[in-house]
Amino acid sequence: MEKIKIFAPATVANVSCAFDVLGFPLQETGDVMTFLKTSETGVKIRMLGNSNLPTEAERNVAGVVALAMLERKSSGFGVEIEIDKRIKPGSGIGSSAASAAGAAFGMNLILGEVFNQNELIEFAMLGEKLASGVAHADNVAPCITGGFALVRSYEPLDVIRIESPDELYVTILHPQIEVKTSDSRRVLKKELPLKTAVKQWGNIASLISALHTSDYELLGRSLEDIIIEPIRSVFIPLFYEVKQAAKDAGTLGSGISGSGPSIFALSKGLETATKAAEAMKKVYAQTDIEFDIHVSKIAATGCRLL
Amino acid sequence: MEKIKIFAPATVANVSCAFDVLGFPLQETGDVMTFLKTSETGVKIRMLGNSNLPTEAERNVAGVVALAMLERKSSGFGVEIEIDKRIKPGSGIGSSAASAAGAAFGMNLILGEVFNQNELIEFAMLGEKLASGVAHADNVAPCITGGFALVRSYEPLDVIRIESPDELYVTILHPQIEVKTSDSRRVLKKELPLKTAVKQWGNIASLISALHTSDYELLGRSLEDIIIEPIRSVFIPLFYEVKQAAKDAGTLGSGISGSGPSIFALSKGLETATKAAEAMKKVYAQTDIEFDIHVSKIAATGCRLL
Repeated sequence: MEKIKIFAPATVANVSCAFDVLGFPLQETGDVMTFLKTSETGVKIRMLGNSNLPTEAERNVAGVVALAMLERKSSGFGVEIEIDKRIKPGSGIGSSAASAAGAAFGMNLILGEVFNQNELIEFAMLGEKLASGVAHADNVAPCITGGFALVRSYEPLDVIRIESPDELYVTILHPQIEVKTSDSRRVLKKELPLKTAVKQWGNIASLISALHTSDYELLGRSLEDIIIEPIRSVFIPLFYEVKQAAKDAGTLGSGISGSGPSIFALSKGLETATKAAEAMKKVYAQTDIEFDIHVSKIAATGCRLL
Repeated sequence: MEKIKIFAPATVANVSCAFDVLGFPLQETGDVMTFLKTSETGVKIRMLGNSNLPTEAERNVAGVVALAMLERKSSGFGVEIEIDKRIKPGSGIGSSAASAAGAAFGMNLILGEVFNQNELIEFAMLGEKLASGVAHADNVAPCITGGFALVRSYEPLDVIRIESPDELYVTILHPQIEVKTSDSRRVLKKELPLKTAVKQWGNIASLISALHTSDYELLGRSLEDIIIEPIRSVFIPLFYEVKQAAKDAGTLGSGISGSGPSIFALSKGLETATKAAEAMKKVYAQTDIEFDIHVSKIAATGCRLL
């Protein structure tokens, strides 16, 4: 193809008890990217609107992914990528992952679908590496696969896609404060008690079972994070108040999206997810902090052609 | 009912990466217990064959469970329990759990099915507490539920039953050496690196997904324990040689059953499980250690009326 336009969804990684191994994409929230094949070799990046993100290909998340893919295929042509960045950087809902996975997905179409899903995730991980120093896959994987993506292992990369229960919706409150991924990694304890780990893996095992059986009650009971959330929540003003408001609104459970500052809550049905949005808003309306709210179905597909 | 006879299966707990939270029962291997209602109150225990197990009800695993159940229902009658103990104590395939869960299951029938599944597991946990000092549920739960039983939480007790893939078989080699549960608990490190825990919960999450989708390949890839097995395997002579023999025979994966010394291997199909039994036998035939071999389908039901 000569020119294509794609949608690259925002993603929620970690999902409470599933730190570093699980994520899912949003149906409604995401970036739009346009890819234009050029006779000139190399990668040109154009950012739409106001953006502080670098546009040199080597320093741009989408750019490094595209460069690597062109190089691997020694394609003899170039590409111009226009990015309409609708996911705010630093939000904790996979802004860099959308650019990285979007680039991998779009470039694959431009190149004639020569790479498989695992390869696309691996290319996208190069973008994550540039963005945060760590080539993690828990945002880019679901951004490519859709549904819930479980990253079992990195060497070799082993990603399992799990269909999302049909009525599962997410509500996200994004407080516009900056939490650096590097800071939120640094505060984590490097060791933990075996007893705590066992409790956590009982929960993640149950969460996976609940996804497979669409058992919303069990899904709710499993959304408990006794390791990461107690530490990282200190960076997020009124975190527990928002959590309580979401609970009172009837959500299944809530937690920190990625490394924050966004807070996500999962609900059965759009009605509860919308009610939760109102309740979560109310908590933040008491503060001077600006915030965004997103309500979305869990997307069955990741990046998609528009 | 006045008199009943039941089968209480052997169980494999831990299942590699799922330390302390998962277990499954065997179709073929287990104890046989007979319950006779008596006008005299109290519990009488009779052990068939040679057994060093105590027969005073208060000191017997089945006895304490039966006593607690009679007391809860203030039934006004007593019971005589005859136990044909076919699972060797200290084998690591849930010998005490079979007595405890069998007692809970049988007594419930004698009492007119007055307790629900969770209550039966809780009663059976009293037997485990007597046997090992810890009221763990990862053997008694599958012994009651059948299939794979996942113990998500203890307070409150939350057990999730997962159907076993249809062609899943287990091969067990039981070296007749003594490994005390208390010893095998004591050697475990109380802390572990977060990185290690994350790898382990990626595996357990994948294992659960594999069970739900009958994905035997994924099941095999997920059967990896980087926390407990490296430590406990030192108690089991030729552990890695048996593991290798099982792998070469085409099994999906293997590990320590419970706290050992039994070694289990999972296979797709009876043929591979039988081939694995031969291969595992061969390794132990080189030693002076006596051993038993069991080959069995994963049982869809736990304790059952005969």
